[in-house]
Amino acid sequence: MHVPIRIDDVLRRTVRLYPDVTAVVEGDQRWTYSKLQEEIHQLARAMNNLGVTKGTRVAVLSPNTTAMMEIYFACFQLGAVVVPLNTRLLSLDYEYIVNHSGAELFFVDAELVHHIEPVKDQLHSVKNFVLTPAPNFPQQLEGWVSFQSFIEAESTTPLITPIEETDYATILYTSGTTGKPKGVIHTHRTLYFNMINTIIHLRAQDHDVLLHTLPIFHVNGWGTPFAFTAVGAKHVMLRKIDPVLIHHLIKTEGVSVACMAPTVLNMLLNEPKFETDKLNQPVRAVLAGSAPPPAFVRKVEQEFGWEFLQVYGMTECAPFITVSPVKNHLKSIEENKKFRLKAKAGIPMLNVELRVVDVDGEDVPADGISVGEIVARGNMVMEGYWLQPEETARSIVNGWYYTGDMGTIDEEGYIDIVDRKKDIIISGGENISSIEIEAALYEHPAILETAVIAVPHEKWGEVPHAFVVVRSGQQLTEEALVEFCRGHLPHFKCPKGISFVSELPKTGSGKIQKIHLRKDFWEGKERLVN
Amino acid sequence: MHVPIRIDDVLRRTVRLYPDVTAVVEGDQRWTYSKLQEEIHQLARAMNNLGVTKGTRVAVLSPNTTAMMEIYFACFQLGAVVVPLNTRLLSLDYEYIVNHSGAELFFVDAELVHHIEPVKDQLHSVKNFVLTPAPNFPQQLEGWVSFQSFIEAESTTPLITPIEETDYATILYTSGTTGKPKGVIHTHRTLYFNMINTIIHLRAQDHDVLLHTLPIFHVNGWGTPFAFTAVGAKHVMLRKIDPVLIHHLIKTEGVSVACMAPTVLNMLLNEPKFETDKLNQPVRAVLAGSAPPPAFVRKVEQEFGWEFLQVYGMTECAPFITVSPVKNHLKSIEENKKFRLKAKAGIPMLNVELRVVDVDGEDVPADGISVGEIVARGNMVMEGYWLQPEETARSIVNGWYYTGDMGTIDEEGYIDIVDRKKDIIISGGENISSIEIEAALYEHPAILETAVIAVPHEKWGEVPHAFVVVRSGQQLTEEALVEFCRGHLPHFKCPKGISFVSELPKTGSGKIQKIHLRKDFWEGKERLVN
Repeated sequence: MHVPIRIDDVLRRTVRLYPDVTAVVEGDQRWTYSKLQEEIHQLARAMNNLGVTKGTRVAVLSPNTTAMMEIYFACFQLGAVVVPLNTRLLSLDYEYIVNHSGAELFFVDAELVHHIEPVKDQLHSVKNFVLTPAPNFPQQLEGWVSFQSFIEAESTTPLITPIEETDYATILYTSGTTGKPKGVIHTHRTLYFNMINTIIHLRAQDHDVLLHTLPIFHVNGWGTPFAFTAVGAKHVMLRKIDPVLIHHLIKTEGVSVACMAPTVLNMLLNEPKFETDKLNQPVRAVLAGSAPPPAFVRKVEQEFGWEFLQVYGMTECAPFITVSPVKNHLKSIEENKKFRLKAKAGIPMLNVELRVVDVDGEDVPADGISVGEIVARGNMVMEGYWLQPEETARSIVNGWYYTGDMGTIDEEGYIDIVDRKKDIIISGGENISSIEIEAALYEHPAILETAVIAVPHEKWGEVPHAFVVVRSGQQLTEEALVEFCRGHLPHFKCPKGISFVSELPKTGSGKIQKIHLRKDFWEGKERLVN
Repeated sequence: MHVPIRIDDVLRRTVRLYPDVTAVVEGDQRWTYSKLQEEIHQLARAMNNLGVTKGTRVAVLSPNTTAMMEIYFACFQLGAVVVPLNTRLLSLDYEYIVNHSGAELFFVDAELVHHIEPVKDQLHSVKNFVLTPAPNFPQQLEGWVSFQSFIEAESTTPLITPIEETDYATILYTSGTTGKPKGVIHTHRTLYFNMINTIIHLRAQDHDVLLHTLPIFHVNGWGTPFAFTAVGAKHVMLRKIDPVLIHHLIKTEGVSVACMAPTVLNMLLNEPKFETDKLNQPVRAVLAGSAPPPAFVRKVEQEFGWEFLQVYGMTECAPFITVSPVKNHLKSIEENKKFRLKAKAGIPMLNVELRVVDVDGEDVPADGISVGEIVARGNMVMEGYWLQPEETARSIVNGWYYTGDMGTIDEEGYIDIVDRKKDIIISGGENISSIEIEAALYEHPAILETAVIAVPHEKWGEVPHAFVVVRSGQQLTEEALVEFCRGHLPHFKCPKGISFVSELPKTGSGKIQKIHLRKDFWEGKERLVN
């Protein structure tokens, strides 16, 4: 029997099995699963009244809210396509993305509406604008329908449009470290396979409480809104990263799992509240982004008593490709090696095939040293880029998605990301991983954050240069830090210059934007590598 | 990106990640995952040399062996279709099934070859016969190729035929409690969805050790050969049910999970070895079949310290439909209610939709009392019956598979199977569940096994009649037992007659064949119900 896979099916199953269980907590408001489903039915009807149907694009600009989750599921029920927008962009970015997507309906959170007002008249495809509620912000605004009045008169009778599993579900504009953002298309099928992997590898269960520390706009919160709904878990919404509030929510809501960028976990590790009011509660901290230094993993597991779980992926893969558990036959290795392993990107999740290949497309040796590009294959890989078939053809070649990430693979099949393809520092013919240098710098107790880039050099072509944020109350000199590096790295890998800064430029999801760091050094040159 | 789902993909991923981990233990032999894969590649080549290719049917008659698992995966790699045969049938049954399936290659275990020899010449489609090894049985036999010589000369270079996910993977002939067996077709896609459910709901992990107490021929061992391979767990093979050997294997191999029919668990609960040599080891005992009495669950969980996990399904559903965990918000209910809940068939697994409907196809109330037929929908439902489109059309109606099982659904969505459609006893207009009567009888300490059927009655149409196997060393009279029943059941539900027998007739998978019990009572009548 062929039943089209659709991502909203999981909500209906959960509503039948967990109708009175708390689905979402947002501030002092709570929704049970049946209440959530009712509002989603109302929302689907309200959207449908405005002509939203199969294939219609619906843009959303919102921090993590219940309304945002409802918009996702209402769109899925109608076969409409969600276009979630990064909350940290500029008005002109929104103008470009919304117009490029051709969205006909636009939901904007009241706290963020000032980003849209200046370009509202330029959003030619948008026929209706809806304001979703934010505490302490007006719910009424001229030219906008308020979310509450939009849905409240509608019936709660289900409205579910038949679809195929290959129909589009979301278009995710990549956060754009270079060039114009591209719209990554995911279908119900690709999101579903990522969701299954999330359930299996993050071990989602009905007793879980997920704190949404990760923005949902960022690759659909890695699929957690679907996976944790599928098992009947509780979602705890979080509008912005506030370590004290996070501490409070973990404690009061019984949070058991949270996904986040390394910078967010770093903030928690440095928040005194976690020292003064210890939480004796096992939390699975799921991290993606660059491989953290093993010292970081040790702190999370030993001082916090949490479980550290590294994952790796990207928007184009829905996002998960790998996860880094300690395999059963490796459980007895010594603790430091274990922390090193857990900091790797890890092994492919189920339904995912991956390889690490050289420039000729041949597998590099599985020795943990040879560097190649990571390529992936599977039902979680995107359909393509919206309206950009040439870009799609450039990234999916012979059935493999080329990630642009450079990594190694060891004898046990664990991938280690050593750099973005373009970020590899090639100095005097030697490949240098900026991540390796960053890991060494993080060993220094006075360093809060660091990023290493390649800068042009007459003799060596490129040399590493470090940007460093010094921990509050500490001090550090360039000389002392270079000396420190020489104790931890081969000479040629040590930064040839250091810039002390108060913060690093980041994308909405907390990814450090090295492109901005690089600009000054490379001005006037044609390329950003030598 | 669309990648056809294929069930053998999971083995390849595991071989990459767990090459040196023990995949299978059989007697004193052990296979690592890479050794297993090598033999599968050799086997696929040997089969392909004989013309086995996409769509070719390959019959297998074997107890649980490594060879059988290899045959499965080799067929999947070639896109060939496995036809596993129940080991408890008669020669004429094998003749019918093999001819009906049109199998071209036939693997038979040396211990079972005497069932096939008498009809070998009648198997017109079979071009080649291969004898798989059994301890203490000859490996050579005229007219048969020995498994070892069949594969040993072949190369271990992978041979993998491109397929679609809708291509057939297995044809399972249902054990046939009535009429000629029907061939249930499963595709790679349907088996894959069942496998995902098995991984999620049986919580399969790489540290698991699965004891194959369930015959693999029985709905592909419920999909456990695929699911536990997918996570890199260890399989422990078992040729026949022997409680002392099972005790030994649990202890020495560190078994953590086993699927079985209630009768097998019953044998373990009654095996003195489990009393004299207590195993302090948590085992997940996964049971299907009729709902066991709560007393049974209590014994497993409290005396054995095991986890009892009831599942429900059927060949046509690959097989899983439901599983019966105690949902998180019910964890604090009192222990007896918990055991009652755990004995139910349970809640639908992920990707499964189910309903309990009356004769008009309307949902019965979710009150735990109203009885209806269980119907299911999802990607785990079979493609249909092999060469029997009319039978397919009779069982899949308007996109729902009609299970023929009668059950109730409670407010929490737990299904309880009360009877086979045809086994419901309708006495004086009242529906009586034979399972309810059996549960009451099982409360009697002297009863080892029991089965209740409907027998014709002039006044009431039908009345319940019990078959009882008395526990060794105990005795029981009809009068005392009827008296006992009256203390536990309404008068009209008590058996009107009791037959004391030494054993009950069973199918290969341990299901009691009520049809054989009924025959004598219903002889000369046109139907088996009144």
